[in-house]
This record gives sequence, structure tokens and C-alpha cells, in this order.
Amino acid sequence: MTDLTDELLRKRHRLMGRFSPLFYEEPIVAVKGEGCYLWDADGRQYLDAYNNVPHVGHCHSHVVDAITRQASTLNVHTRYLNPVVLDYSERLLTKFDDSLESVIYACSGSEANEAAVRMARHYTGKQGVIVTDLAYHGNTEAIAEMGTEFMPESRHSQRVATFTTPDRYRAPSGLVGDALAAYFLETVDAAIAKLQDSGAGVAALLVCPGFANEGIPEAPPAFLSKAAARVREAGGLIIADEVQFGFGRSATHWFSHQKFGVIPDIVTLGKPMGNGHPISAVLASRTLVENFGEWGMYFNTFAGNPVSCAAANAVLDVLETEQLLPRAERNSKIVFDALKAMQSRYDCFGDVREGGLFFAVDLVDDPVEKTPATALANKVVNQMRQRGVLISRIGPNDNVLKIRPPLAFDSEHADQLLTTLESVMEDVTGG
Amino acid sequence: MTDLTDELLRKRHRLMGRFSPLFYEEPIVAVKGEGCYLWDADGRQYLDAYNNVPHVGHCHSHVVDAITRQASTLNVHTRYLNPVVLDYSERLLTKFDDSLESVIYACSGSEANEAAVRMARHYTGKQGVIVTDLAYHGNTEAIAEMGTEFMPESRHSQRVATFTTPDRYRAPSGLVGDALAAYFLETVDAAIAKLQDSGAGVAALLVCPGFANEGIPEAPPAFLSKAAARVREAGGLIIADEVQFGFGRSATHWFSHQKFGVIPDIVTLGKPMGNGHPISAVLASRTLVENFGEWGMYFNTFAGNPVSCAAANAVLDVLETEQLLPRAERNSKIVFDALKAMQSRYDCFGDVREGGLFFAVDLVDDPVEKTPATALANKVVNQMRQRGVLISRIGPNDNVLKIRPPLAFDSEHADQLLTTLESVMEDVTGG
Repeated sequence: MTDLTDELLRKRHRLMGRFSPLFYEEPIVAVKGEGCYLWDADGRQYLDAYNNVPHVGHCHSHVVDAITRQASTLNVHTRYLNPVVLDYSERLLTKFDDSLESVIYACSGSEANEAAVRMARHYTGKQGVIVTDLAYHGNTEAIAEMGTEFMPESRHSQRVATFTTPDRYRAPSGLVGDALAAYFLETVDAAIAKLQDSGAGVAALLVCPGFANEGIPEAPPAFLSKAAARVREAGGLIIADEVQFGFGRSATHWFSHQKFGVIPDIVTLGKPMGNGHPISAVLASRTLVENFGEWGMYFNTFAGNPVSCAAANAVLDVLETEQLLPRAERNSKIVFDALKAMQSRYDCFGDVREGGLFFAVDLVDDPVEKTPATALANKVVNQMRQRGVLISRIGPNDNVLKIRPPLAFDSEHADQLLTTLESVMEDVTGG
Repeated sequence: MTDLTDELLRKRHRLMGRFSPLFYEEPIVAVKGEGCYLWDADGRQYLDAYNNVPHVGHCHSHVVDAITRQASTLNVHTRYLNPVVLDYSERLLTKFDDSLESVIYACSGSEANEAAVRMARHYTGKQGVIVTDLAYHGNTEAIAEMGTEFMPESRHSQRVATFTTPDRYRAPSGLVGDALAAYFLETVDAAIAKLQDSGAGVAALLVCPGFANEGIPEAPPAFLSKAAARVREAGGLIIADEVQFGFGRSATHWFSHQKFGVIPDIVTLGKPMGNGHPISAVLASRTLVENFGEWGMYFNTFAGNPVSCAAANAVLDVLETEQLLPRAERNSKIVFDALKAMQSRYDCFGDVREGGLFFAVDLVDDPVEKTPATALANKVVNQMRQRGVLISRIGPNDNVLKIRPPLAFDSEHADQLLTTLESVMEDVTGG
């Protein structure tokens, strides 16, 4: 660790506490970003194959210009009428099914999920929310209740019920086809029953359609639409948390629920929406939005300010003019094919998955037992960082490599990622 | 209403629902802001005597430049080390008592209060929070529980107890001195007892030291420190919600708890912090921050990003270089003296109050009965808007004029505000 890193780390522990999360055994002192690259204080360049917030590339000039122009002109809350906000809202909503016709703005994914859950609870008159057993949807009290991944069973709320993450790879062996789907769907039924029995009732299914936090497992065909149908039958609404998968992360679709053929009652958006400028949103029918607005008198000072909408509008411009969805689709295939090829050479590549420009490698110590290779994953992630490529890991055992670059990622970046991963794997496996 | 206003209003209702709050009978189509002025789409100029978010003035070039420079350089989350964030944190904390030594960032006041309340609940092991009976602290589920102002008693949570807003003017007549103080403090005791009896226990007193949302009542001397002592004796922490009063709104002090001689355990900051760029913060001892961080694994994607810290740092620059606290103190006196002079001429000026560069006029139909003059207040606010000066109203009866300009407000703005108010009062009272 350099003297500067050490000094900043001590300063950080003093000013922000020791538990504010940091990446890597040797943290990076980030000082500059551009496109798919970050630079540290020593001038070292890193390929960013992890960050989904700088969606169209770090510090994209079109987004920065839009922010500068609007911040120099007007930045106020939504208690005044503002054409910038309304024009963006109109443009955003055209990307969705006609039933998702109105929008509420917020500042973060947590706030968007808060508003969505409050909306669903008020509309249904029920309290219960169904999430996966590896969920994370935000950091507020009510939404942290739904953060089941790192929460001991004893801390689970009576208002939350979980179903089993539909991960084929880690399902009981022998289950295939309809039996596999039934296995996971039964856990949805059990969650519904639990909430109905406790008296909480079913307000909503809150789910990331691509299961980002769950490690992008490949669910059985039509799993999501079948689960949604069951929840709707029990009187609950469907909330698609598109905070991670929205705006083209799935590559084939603007929003991941569209890929899975489910039209949610409520959609939440965040992270990539403003390329790092804080903005998030909740989309729903006008009926749901007004039902919530009249009761809750929802207002959010910074939310939907014209600067954030100008930033978000510029993100849509870049996604369209630079054709980033087709680019993501091309590069998704390149990276996924290469990872699959590596799987045939590395036994520790237990499962390789893609969710558009988002890849997961479930590392195992034993391909038969599927023992999570936590220490190996840690070594790979830190070796990658030492060799100038940023990725991370995920999952209850922190053994799943998480590769999720900005959408601006292109073939030369794919080359660098794959070459570096190959060299790291050779070294760490002694291959 | 102009054709454009009408068109945008219909568009807004369709896209954002009818209940997203708007100001004025004839809403303003805001298109430009500079200093203490806003302009509408017809080029009409309005003196902004309401907004506290554009703290150092709308679109201040020093803040915009800082945003542009940092947004062009680097904008990432806090999982990397970043000198901009650490330097701002250090500078911010020097404005506080040494016991407030660490900071957690968030995006909005709601999020900051969420983190503060979660911190207090976890640290004390209790659930109960004490707030005023006219409180508003945010829009999330847990914090909306504490929004007692517009909440019918039947919706009050078991985890929340209220004390009576210490408003001398609306206290039972005849109470003065120690008896008046005792009257309000007894309601604090009752709130503590309610929470202890219900089993919730006392986690915290959550209070805006200047009682912004409560209409800046003039509390009995040392009320806040006496209330705080009682809550601490019951095992609760003191959370000062400085979202509205922070960064010099009180004119005499950087943060309003300093004016009242109370050192809180936790301070929350928001609105003016980044002059409109979304940023908020929670300050506490390192022990409290780490106790919360280790348990809650708090992370917030957009929070504490270097762009928001650069904006917030630029706000501190302007506050200091343009000497906005002394300016606020001078103009506070000018406006308050003039309002007091008007009170002697207008019977409807039931009570005139100041909280630094923040003024409240409790309008009454009858100065003896103190009947809230809701319709009159509505007329005054809308007439002011028609004559180019923006103020608002507040209070459970919406009869209290709320005048709270940007801190950049100076004597020429005070003149315009007072001249316009005088002319409106003459007209509406037929005086």
C-alpha cells in the first residue's frame, strides 16, 4: 500500500468510520474517470468492468454539458412547473408499456423502492412484501427489512416473506424441466401463504427481474411471469426493481422486465439513470400514483429537479445516438462465449452466466460438490485489480465473480478484460 | 392563467398525477434562476423570498463551476478512496462540536433522518421516537410515521410520541415564565412516559432546533436543553434535524442547535448543503457511526460522491467569502423590525417571529381570539406572487406566512419584499 493510500485510509476511518465499505485489499485512490477507465493518484489506469452507475461512460461530456447548462440556468424543486422535467418524463415513459403512464421522482434507488412499497401497501391495504432470499433493495428501515441476503433469519420481519432464488445451478440436483420450475414456484406459494397466515397479507412482489443482487441466476423459463401470476392472484402488486437492470443492462431490452414478458404494476429506476447524478423514479398507472399522492402527500425536495432530469435526458441521448444497447449485445456475446470457453479449461468455473452486459462466474473448489470458492474469488478479484481491471464478487458466500461494466464497454475493453482474467486464472490455479 | 401554464399543468397531471404539490393558484412556469430571482416563461422576474435550497443564490457560478469541474473529472461512489470527499468531510466537521466527529452521507433529508433514526434505534435498543405535534422529517415509511402535522391521530404509530410545539403565542393564555416552560416540558414528560409504558422505549428525540416546520415559534428560554436533558435521562439520544436550519439559516450560528446551547448526539443535514445538488449527511460520534455501520452495513450508491462533495464544498466557500452569515444577520434585523412595525398597523398580524433569515407571520382574523386567518393568508401569498414576490404559508391551519429567502438575500431584496408586502396588506385589508 502506498503512503498516500495508507494516509487516506486512516483519514477515512476517522472521518467516516471503519465500516463504510471499500473495495479491494489495497483500496484505490480514484482521482479521474473517462469512458471505461478510472485512474488512481499515481496515474495508474484501470479498466472499469464493474460500475453500472457511469452507464454511458465515466464523465461523458454530453451528460456533463447538460448538467452544466441546466445548473447554470435553473435548479428548483417540482413545486413550480418546469418544461425540462415534463419533457423528460414524457420521453422516459415512452420506453414502457402504456399502462405505466405516470412517474414520481426520488433521489436514490432506496427512495424509489420506499415510495413503491408505500404505494403498494396503501393501495392493497396489505403489508406483506415478497422478495428473494438473497435480496437487497435499499438502505432505509422499511427497505432494509427486505434485505434478506445478509440478514440472519432471526431478524426477518413479519411483513417480509422470501422465496428461493431460482438458481438452476444451486438447485437440488436431479431437478430439471417442470419439476425444477415447480420447486421454485412452490417457495413463492409458501411465501404467499406465510403472509396470509400471519395477517400481513400480500401487498407486493418486489423483485429485480434479472436477479442482479442474487448473482443473475438463470431462472426456469417463464418463472417470473408464473410467480407474478401467483402474487397477483393473492391480491399483490408486482414491483419490478429496475434500479440495476434498467436502461439497457440486459442489452436486448431497455428494461429487464420486458425481456421476461412481465408487465409490472410499478417499476423503480435508479443507478444508471443520470450517469451518477442522483436521480431515481417510480413508474405506475396514474391511478396508483394519484392514490398514493393524495394519501401520502409525497414530496421530495431534490427529486425531479431540472438538473437531474437534464442529466437523465442526456443519458437517453447517448444510449440512442451511440447505440449502446446493440453494442452491449455484441460485447455480451463476446465476453460470455469467452467465459464459457474458459469454463471448459478451469474446473473452478462452476457456472458461467450472463444477463446482458453483466456476467457472473460461480467459482467452486469442487465442481461436483459445488463448494463455494470464496478464498479463490477473493484472490481473483484482487489480482485483477492489481493487474488493472476492476471487477467484484457477490453472493452469500462471496464466491461469484461479478463483471458488470459501463454500457460504453466495447470490444477492446472486452479483450483487455478477458486477457487479464485468463492470466490471473492461470496464475491462481497454477494452470 | 396563460395558455402555456394551462398546457403544462395538464401535461403534468397526466405525467405526474394531480397530487404532486404545486405552489400558487396560478403556478409559475420557472425557466431561469439567478441570485435571489426566478424568471418565468414570459420573462417575468420574481424575487425569491421562499427557497432555502438555492442557499447561496440560484445558479451561483462558483457552485456550478465546482460541479462542472468535478463532473468532468470523476464521479464515483465511496467504495474507492477519494480526497475530495475526505477533505470536504474534514472541513464540514470543523463547524461542529468535537464530539460530532464522523459523517455518513446520504442523498436527501429523508435519507439522512432514516439513517439517524436507525442509528439511534440500534444503539439504544429502543424503538420510540419523540417529535413535535407539528413535525415533518421526511417521506420514507419510517420517517413519514413521524410526520405528525398532517396525520390524523388514528394513524399515529406506537413507536412515535409527540410533545406540544412550544409556541408561546398559541399557548393557553395566562401562562408565562416558568409556568409556560413547565406546560410544554410536561408534554415532553408525557411523551417519554407513553413510549416507556408501551414498551417501545425511548430511542431519540428528533427535532429541528429552530422548529422550522412548526412555524418557528419562540420557545421558552432553554426549552430545548431542558427537553433534551429529560430525553437523555430516559436513555434516548438527541437528533438535531438541521436539514432546514443548517448552514447559517439562524444567521447567528452555523447550525441552529449551537444557538440553543444543545450538543446533539446526531445531526442531520440536507437542503442547502449543495445549493440544490442532492446531498445530505448524518454526523455523530465515531462510536455511533461505527456501531451503525458494522450492524447495518450502510451503503448508499450516490451518497458522498465527489461531485456532490465538490458542490457542498463550494457552498462553504461562498458562505465564507461572501460573508453570508453576517449578511443574513443584518437583513434579518431589517425585515423583522419592519414586520414588527407592520404588526402595530395590521391587527391581522397576530404574531411576528424570526429565526434568523426566516420569518413567520401568524395571521389571525381576530387578534383576541387568535382565529387562524387561513383565507387571508392564501390571498396574501397569491397576491405577493402576482406582484412578483415568492413566499408561502405553513402551519396546521395554513395561516402562517413563511418567508425564508436564500441566504444571498440582501437589503435591496428586503426593500422589495417589504414594499410589496405592505402594498398587498393595504389592498387585502382595505387599509
